[in-house]
Amino acid sequence: MLDYSYYMPTKIVWGRNSISKNYGLIQDLGKKAAIVTGSSGAAKSGALADVVAALGENGQEFQVFSGVVSDPPSENILDLSQEIKSYSPDFLIAIGGGSVIDAAKVISFLLTNGISKGIIWQNISIEPLALVAVVTTAGTGSEVTPYAVLTDYEQETKRSVASDLIYPNIAFLDPRYTESMPYSLALDTAVDALSHLIEGLFAKKANNMSDHLAIKGLKLWSEGLSGLISGEISTKQRDSLLAASLFGGLTIAKTGTTLVHALGYSLTYYHNLTHGKANGLLLGFYLEYMQKFSPQKTAMVLEILGFKDLSQFRAVFQRFYSIKLDLTTREIALYVEKALKSRNVDNTVGEISAFVLADILERSLVK
Amino acid sequence: MLDYSYYMPTKIVWGRNSISKNYGLIQDLGKKAAIVTGSSGAAKSGALADVVAALGENGQEFQVFSGVVSDPPSENILDLSQEIKSYSPDFLIAIGGGSVIDAAKVISFLLTNGISKGIIWQNISIEPLALVAVVTTAGTGSEVTPYAVLTDYEQETKRSVASDLIYPNIAFLDPRYTESMPYSLALDTAVDALSHLIEGLFAKKANNMSDHLAIKGLKLWSEGLSGLISGEISTKQRDSLLAASLFGGLTIAKTGTTLVHALGYSLTYYHNLTHGKANGLLLGFYLEYMQKFSPQKTAMVLEILGFKDLSQFRAVFQRFYSIKLDLTTREIALYVEKALKSRNVDNTVGEISAFVLADILERSLVK
Repeated sequence: MLDYSYYMPTKIVWGRNSISKNYGLIQDLGKKAAIVTGSSGAAKSGALADVVAALGENGQEFQVFSGVVSDPPSENILDLSQEIKSYSPDFLIAIGGGSVIDAAKVISFLLTNGISKGIIWQNISIEPLALVAVVTTAGTGSEVTPYAVLTDYEQETKRSVASDLIYPNIAFLDPRYTESMPYSLALDTAVDALSHLIEGLFAKKANNMSDHLAIKGLKLWSEGLSGLISGEISTKQRDSLLAASLFGGLTIAKTGTTLVHALGYSLTYYHNLTHGKANGLLLGFYLEYMQKFSPQKTAMVLEILGFKDLSQFRAVFQRFYSIKLDLTTREIALYVEKALKSRNVDNTVGEISAFVLADILERSLVK
Repeated sequence: MLDYSYYMPTKIVWGRNSISKNYGLIQDLGKKAAIVTGSSGAAKSGALADVVAALGENGQEFQVFSGVVSDPPSENILDLSQEIKSYSPDFLIAIGGGSVIDAAKVISFLLTNGISKGIIWQNISIEPLALVAVVTTAGTGSEVTPYAVLTDYEQETKRSVASDLIYPNIAFLDPRYTESMPYSLALDTAVDALSHLIEGLFAKKANNMSDHLAIKGLKLWSEGLSGLISGEISTKQRDSLLAASLFGGLTIAKTGTTLVHALGYSLTYYHNLTHGKANGLLLGFYLEYMQKFSPQKTAMVLEILGFKDLSQFRAVFQRFYSIKLDLTTREIALYVEKALKSRNVDNTVGEISAFVLADILERSLVK
């Protein structure tokens, strides 16, 4: 049976100089904007200057709040929310990668629903502030998803908030902004996008629409692969990788992610691996299980990406990431336990037992 | 340069029994629903019963307004709006094909912006009532577009309203509802969907996203073609054609339509041809011009649909529609003049002169 159910209400505005060509779109959102950024990407990419010019053109006031840290913990977001509240903006503009956009999503609803830790993990009911997402990396897809992922010190993991109310109103994707990314960031974020595309195919929540989007994204991603391998990513390849990242977001907007994200969270939380790296390390042996549960789709992934077989896929990813992590049995047991508690594992096709998770983790990492 | 700009905020809910499985979605829209229908499709398809059951489950009041006529003139819509206003509903549920959904879109904003003919053709500013679209044909795509097409007696043509505010909030696509369509309606609506998919490819407003959607839609449509030719449309083919229709809507949500729709409007207005028929008659010779302006895309269309060449395409469409219409030179000149005034002609790739339009029209119709 076909199933094309889908929901993604964000207005996608793509293209070089898309902000300066479309600044009028921002005008309707209010008089005062709080610009939310991390430490450097917003300025370095040129996006901040474009946003400031657009707001000037519209006669809109703004203030910049640059305090989002990587993999932001809820404390970081609560502090920022208080700071931004005292400015009482009409809307938010997030400029950055996934951490910044996710932080801004949470801030957008805390400002209307009340600033407290409890609210973050509750079902929100009051409409958040409008949010514009300006992407400076090519991986997160968060600009078109209803999710925000935060670090939770209490539960010692990364946890996600999901609500249809937190889709950004507008997403600007200007490929120029991704050109300032150093290679390591371009690689990490590209691998995150790939993870979304692959996991989307193997999610229980996948349907014909998400498969269609994932397949397109994989094709776009494969156009960038030779650049990721050589370290010389052409402008055209940066464009394709940004589009692949967008399709990764469009895919998981429907499907959510699966066990790779669930296991990867612990690698980021306890071992400080970047999100892309954590996922990238796991993808090869993940696909080995998926080959068993869904051989057709696995073969399709390999074919689209141009890999002869899974060992070729793994070889490329081992070239990307040569991290040695010797995990103790106790650590593996802990990460498996944490993953099993997350919705992402339940959302994976096949029979995902603790054994499967431990096996993927061990073979991916322990050397 | 890639361009993936796109906006389509409607929640698509697909599947057999999708209303009874998702009645909770309707609950948030308010206490009182005005159900808008045409004369028979809503009841015959079973959709009306499902909607009524869902509203009952939710404890929502409703009243049925079944007065929408085919290719509704603004007068019909103004009368209905007055009638519905006296019920003062919180939201609308349209059950039907394009005429019903388009009428409901206009009613949704007249009820909040003021009921008058002038308002129909102005830029609307006040948020319309929420609208649920329940599709009973497989062609319009209106459930996922920002357009409504009305018959305008003053200008003696069909004219469209376009506003991002009139996307339906929710679109229910249950393939069961399309099973009650007689062959002629299934054919006419399928041809309308095909027209959207093809015109979307040749629109100046096309981009990578709309092309991607149109190509998928053409593939789905081709799965139904043998059924349309034989007159025996299998359940599986009905599903594919409904999906093709959805993708037609998703495509023109970005691209709008082109000269085929512009010329077709006069054939409907003056000669009472159904909308699908009017478009279907013109597609063959339209593609001949498109072959000149965009040979690659034309070849792709033919390949996806499984036609060797354009004459094979035309032969199939001549089998579908064997209408003889002897137009006078004066009529042709009038229809060309009207088409030239519409935005749709400007939106067609290539050099579309009065000569081109007259040539397409004459060769398509005059025998």
